Amino acid sequence: MRVVVLRWGHRIPRDRRVTTHVALTARAFGAEGMILADVEDEAVERSIRQVTRLWGGSFWVKSGIPWREAVREWRSMGGLTVHLTVYGLPLTRELAEKIKRENRPVMVMVGSQKVPREFFSPKVSDYNVAVGGQPHSEVSSLAIFLDRILDEAWLTLKFDDAKLRVVPQERGKKVLRVKV
Amino acid sequence: MRVVVLRWGHRIPRDRRVTTHVALTARAFGAEGMILADVEDEAVERSIRQVTRLWGGSFWVKSGIPWREAVREWRSMGGLTVHLTVYGLPLTRELAEKIKRENRPVMVMVGSQKVPREFFSPKVSDYNVAVGGQPHSEVSSLAIFLDRILDEAWLTLKFDDAKLRVVPQERGKKVLRVKV
Repeated sequence: MRVVVLRWGHRIPRDRRVTTHVALTARAFGAEGMILADVEDEAVERSIRQVTRLWGGSFWVKSGIPWREAVREWRSMGGLTVHLTVYGLPLTRELAEKIKRENRPVMVMVGSQKVPREFFSPKVSDYNVAVGGQPHSEVSSLAIFLDRILDEAWLTLKFDDAKLRVVPQERGKKVLRVKV
Repeated sequence: MRVVVLRWGHRIPRDRRVTTHVALTARAFGAEGMILADVEDEAVERSIRQVTRLWGGSFWVKSGIPWREAVREWRSMGGLTVHLTVYGLPLTRELAEKIKRENRPVMVMVGSQKVPREFFSPKVSDYNVAVGGQPHSEVSSLAIFLDRILDEAWLTLKFDDAKLRVVPQERGKKVLRVKV
């Protein structure tokens, strides 16, 4: 299943680290890319590009696209939109299965501050989904959501053309470095 | 199962937001508290206390305890230590079950920068566990780890004495405010 993440409300510089965690989580858990809506941030794009260059795969980040345009285009192509919000319906196994059964590409929308009210509207989001009803982190919410709808893809994903690859160890660190 | 989180390597002010996300994730996913090792940070303690006051429960944050002391004390009480690291063994269902079958209180150790080499040693960690072999976020790793070993407790946890409680909605926001 194709998944992209739309990150809304990024503020420079205060959100850079958390937005980077959002992007790396998106990549490691199986999303194909992240749209950083409404604001251009070359620094975030660069740091994610650097990770992809070293660790492989084709994860992309595009910043500066207006969220309305991104959502409109996604839906016009038949894509589903899922807004992660503490106010939404709890992400039970049943809800995750329902979303999977739609069998459509998914745009996951995560805010870094109070989102526009329209995000909750059927004109924007097909689902408003909560990873629990407590305040915590959009990074956690995204990880759990992707874990559920992509069937723990993070456990087995391979990234092409990686220059670095971790070899799991009970103790210590082992990293394979591929020379190019 | 009792779980506490030990956060290591917190830098003021740069790590404050991510450390706060770690603490809120720990709370929302069922840990009982967080030790912010080696550094005192009254601001983080205060902001988490404020969340607990509004959203209930008894989650605690203690900062400034040296990590060696915290680990030594935890182990002397029969507690298990699990170090989350990209270099460790993948968190398969089997590994999660094995950790659960130990049936001991768990201290989860997460770093915010390169951790001391000793963290990988059997003198410190009983397990070195990786939530995937790709760089992403200690916030995601903690969420997935707690989800697995506490059987998605985040979905059903209740927090006592909450002044705010979200009522899940398909659309819009609904929050109950309890007057005191």
